[in-house]
Amino acid sequence: MTRQRNSPLEDGVHCTTVRVRFGDTDPYGIVYFVSYFRYCHRAIEEYLRACGLRPEETFKNVQEGFGLPIVEAWCRFRRPSKYGELLRMETQIQEMRAKAIIFRFEFYPETGRELLAEGTANLVAIGPDWRGRPLPERLKIALTGIE
Amino acid sequence: MTRQRNSPLEDGVHCTTVRVRFGDTDPYGIVYFVSYFRYCHRAIEEYLRACGLRPEETFKNVQEGFGLPIVEAWCRFRRPSKYGELLRMETQIQEMRAKAIIFRFEFYPETGRELLAEGTANLVAIGPDWRGRPLPERLKIALTGIE
Amino acid sequence: MTRQRNSPLEDGVHCTTVRVRFGDTDPYGIVYFVSYFRYCHRAIEEYLRACGLRPEETFKNVQEGFGLPIVEAWCRFRRPSKYGELLRMETQIQEMRAKAIIFRFEFYPETGRELLAEGTANLVAIGPDWRGRPLPERLKIALTGIE
Amino acid sequence: MTRQRNSPLEDGVHCTTVRVRFGDTDPYGIVYFVSYFRYCHRAIEEYLRACGLRPEETFKNVQEGFGLPIVEAWCRFRRPSKYGELLRMETQIQEMRAKAIIFRFEFYPETGRELLAEGTANLVAIGPDWRGRPLPERLKIALTGIE
Repeated sequence: MTRQRNSPLEDGVHCTTVRVRFGDTDPYGIVYFVSYFRYCHRAIEEYLRACGLRPEETFKNVQEGFGLPIVEAWCRFRRPSKYGELLRMETQIQEMRAKAIIFRFEFYPETGRELLAEGTANLVAIGPDWRGRPLPERLKIALTGIE
Repeated sequence: MTRQRNSPLEDGVHCTTVRVRFGDTDPYGIVYFVSYFRYCHRAIEEYLRACGLRPEETFKNVQEGFGLPIVEAWCRFRRPSKYGELLRMETQIQEMRAKAIIFRFEFYPETGRELLAEGTANLVAIGPDWRGRPLPERLKIALTGIE
Repeated sequence: MTRQRNSPLEDGVHCTTVRVRFGDTDPYGIVYFVSYFRYCHRAIEEYLRACGLRPEETFKNVQEGFGLPIVEAWCRFRRPSKYGELLRMETQIQEMRAKAIIFRFEFYPETGRELLAEGTANLVAIGPDWRGRPLPERLKIALTGIE
Repeated sequence: MTRQRNSPLEDGVHCTTVRVRFGDTDPYGIVYFVSYFRYCHRAIEEYLRACGLRPEETFKNVQEGFGLPIVEAWCRFRRPSKYGELLRMETQIQEMRAKAIIFRFEFYPETGRELLAEGTANLVAIGPDWRGRPLPERLKIALTGIE
């Protein structure tokens, strides 16, 4: 039996765009660092959707008895972005463990390859008791295309 | 039997302050109008606390079978405030109906009587079916001091 | 000379969608009323873009010496929306005065005609001294298609 | 000439509290990870104020020709906090370099020593050209009490 990669994403990278909105900047018109983390969560949501997963049933799923909280997040901000700009987010799974997923994010101008910011977010699978548990099989298959 | 006013608040007005934070402004350093609505909600929370009510059991209370969603909100912005400023919020109940409460907010500089912004928020009591219901008696008493 | 209507928008109504994001809800999964005002600002931005105006040169324009702050905003929330839902925003200019624009917003489910929320936002034109001034002619033409 | 430590903060640790507000949670009532980064910025602001520095003249100072953007941020979330809770933030300078400051944050329940979350934020001094420059002497003295 051979493992087969069937990811719905080309090369495992998901691309989406985000517009810098009026409330996303600091008082000087530069994207507030906190907004990048908000964009990262949005990137995860779109990544999940691209894999056929509904975010609202994935971050917490009472029926299936699991949650998927973010337990660690990191970003480095290389160049400032301004109000009104359109950013391209490239999202991929950096690492998939038995009980955890690490997403990696890169931010670029809409067109261009200059890295504006990069980051990671670690999600762990927990049960109703908030203790770690293996990632639901359904999720792993949807995210990796590997059965 | 005489009705007695026992409000925990002097003249029914609650005062609290809010600092304009880094993420609260627009790209030009002026408070983003949306932030005022966030401040209004905070003012309601502090008003409730001053009346001995826990917000986390008041906006939604599964045990007692009620919710208290905001169904209407309005603000007028008279003068701009800037990043770093300390605002004084004066909050009062403008009207108490059988099924609804209307809060009124006024924003001033920390010291000074120049009205910076004003607004209202209408909350209605609903049951678990999201239909209107009378305000819980416990709430009315706590908010007005009238038994 | 006849006045000619050339609005870039069909019937003067601009449609766009907004996804309810993870950070947009209250602790009970329902859209936080403050988020609607954020959506309203985004709707104005998209309206401006559809008329060929760049928001980042329209809300404040140092070169041309004007600003366009929001001086009043109002929303009524009719039915709750939940995390993950896609909302359709219909935006139009309710009134255009010499020195002010009033935008009107309506929120619907992505498909469907059930009004979820509605609101207005009043913008006034000001000069560098923060005093009212007539709307720049360029803006009026772009927004109405009337020369 | 002896160097003298005169920090305005006892042991160099600044304590402040933050209330988990209605808009700070995820749809399940747990603090949204993005909110912690917002709290971190607030902790920096209060740290600066405790050292006699006005944040609105410290993150960007046109007169003195410097800015102090956050170029990296990280948080680990150990235990969930809920809507309405009061968190104690302990903030300190983890490292002070020639051109950079690294702040460290710890979040605890209002009373109690259980670590809820921890994080860091790296700030670098830049000139008007956005290139790195040494930290202004005035800042270093105010933050460390060392002349």
